[in-house]
Amino acid sequence: MTERHTVHHIPVCPFSQRLEILLALRGTPEAVEFRVVDITKPRDPALLAKTRGTTALPVLETPGGGILKESLVILRYLDETLPGPALRRRDPMEHAVESMLVGREGPFTAAGYLFVMNQDPVRRAEHEAKLLSLYRDLNAFLTEHNPDGAFLFEDFGWAEAVFAPMFMRFWFLDYYEGFRLPDTPDCHRVRAWVDACLAHPATGQVTREEIVKLYYDYAMGAGNGALVPGRAVSSFVFLPAWQDRPWPPRTKYEGTASDAELGLLGRE
Amino acid sequence: MTERHTVHHIPVCPFSQRLEILLALRGTPEAVEFRVVDITKPRDPALLAKTRGTTALPVLETPGGGILKESLVILRYLDETLPGPALRRRDPMEHAVESMLVGREGPFTAAGYLFVMNQDPVRRAEHEAKLLSLYRDLNAFLTEHNPDGAFLFEDFGWAEAVFAPMFMRFWFLDYYEGFRLPDTPDCHRVRAWVDACLAHPATGQVTREEIVKLYYDYAMGAGNGALVPGRAVSSFVFLPAWQDRPWPPRTKYEGTASDAELGLLGRE
Repeated sequence: MTERHTVHHIPVCPFSQRLEILLALRGTPEAVEFRVVDITKPRDPALLAKTRGTTALPVLETPGGGILKESLVILRYLDETLPGPALRRRDPMEHAVESMLVGREGPFTAAGYLFVMNQDPVRRAEHEAKLLSLYRDLNAFLTEHNPDGAFLFEDFGWAEAVFAPMFMRFWFLDYYEGFRLPDTPDCHRVRAWVDACLAHPATGQVTREEIVKLYYDYAMGAGNGALVPGRAVSSFVFLPAWQDRPWPPRTKYEGTASDAELGLLGRE
Repeated sequence: MTERHTVHHIPVCPFSQRLEILLALRGTPEAVEFRVVDITKPRDPALLAKTRGTTALPVLETPGGGILKESLVILRYLDETLPGPALRRRDPMEHAVESMLVGREGPFTAAGYLFVMNQDPVRRAEHEAKLLSLYRDLNAFLTEHNPDGAFLFEDFGWAEAVFAPMFMRFWFLDYYEGFRLPDTPDCHRVRAWVDACLAHPATGQVTREEIVKLYYDYAMGAGNGALVPGRAVSSFVFLPAWQDRPWPPRTKYEGTASDAELGLLGRE
């Protein structure tokens, strides 16, 4: 590709991070220009026109003005067009295996997000059990296909690029729910996978501190830049920068901290 | 491939029909041996062991004993391994476009199945409106990418292999719900697509009569071979053959017809 592609994205968005991971692995970060969308503000009408009214991100815009949506569609497109070795397994059977694993990501992500956004302490155990059952299912899959390895195959690949951003987002479950994988045999293989994904240099786009601070409002039940009742500023605002804010309280079931306590009232 | 693959399937299953359509288009129906699973009976333990306890079909078994699940995973695997021109668009951008369309199939299928299985007449209009909104979304997508054609591109392809089996299943909505696409401009393009898919010779594996008779129990709210209360035989039984049964009553909100009225009490 001679001209650059543009990806409109939210910097901390896990679906966008998949594309950043692909670019990092490929050694071609300059192949795509990332343009930041602030989800705490009304959407730019020019971008809305390009996406025909939908607000989901990321969106890839080709040099010719073509628009692609859905992170897995964009990931495959970039994998097929960027120079260098493909992220997907070349062997059709191996790609089918990694695709079956990727097919588990939707329910896994939904379970984690519903857990962190849950506001009813009575239902906490139910959310935890659901997520744990999905971790155990990943454990069984990895044990079946690569019992002794760290990744699904010998190295970080297609499935890891899809799941790693979710493992990093789920730091919000560690922090706000005290959720940890139990030290039991039915979780050892998936824990090794999670640890290998988090330690891989291609996944360094975000930090635990950034996730915990920016996703505070999710722990209060407010997603996608929505405002928590009683607050005037979203935890997803760009300024004050997350580095300049204190760590939020972990006590999610006791109601929101104030904008001031969260360090959200700095200079505009 | 020198040895044959096996697909374990329910003959009238739309997800399996996708694979049959691919084989028909490729002119290689002998590349896969289909083995019939009777969902009205307990699952064969040998097959359950191969699928590690899951019952979803179709399942592809390679000559080496590898197991693949999920129709889209199997479809891509066959597309990449069978001889002959690929079903998917070769151009990465065009494949991304057909993949975006395919991404709409899950909610579309869910809306149609929830509609036919709905047992509450008060909620009928809500189900109809939901499905219509999804047809209109398909209409907008096709109008954007190929306003004057019949298919998404110039011929029946990847997206058509995915959607055509659903358009055929939705004959149950025409019959049991009187559902038809309105003759309005926001549905003309998708209607042309549906008609072209139904008329294509690669989609002749099932007939309207077969769908309407076999899926009667879905219209009574019982899916996947489950028994309708008050009945002893599923409409999905293989014998008596659907050809030997009468057309079922269309009056789905008045309760089930009897096994005898449905012609289900023939010779074993």
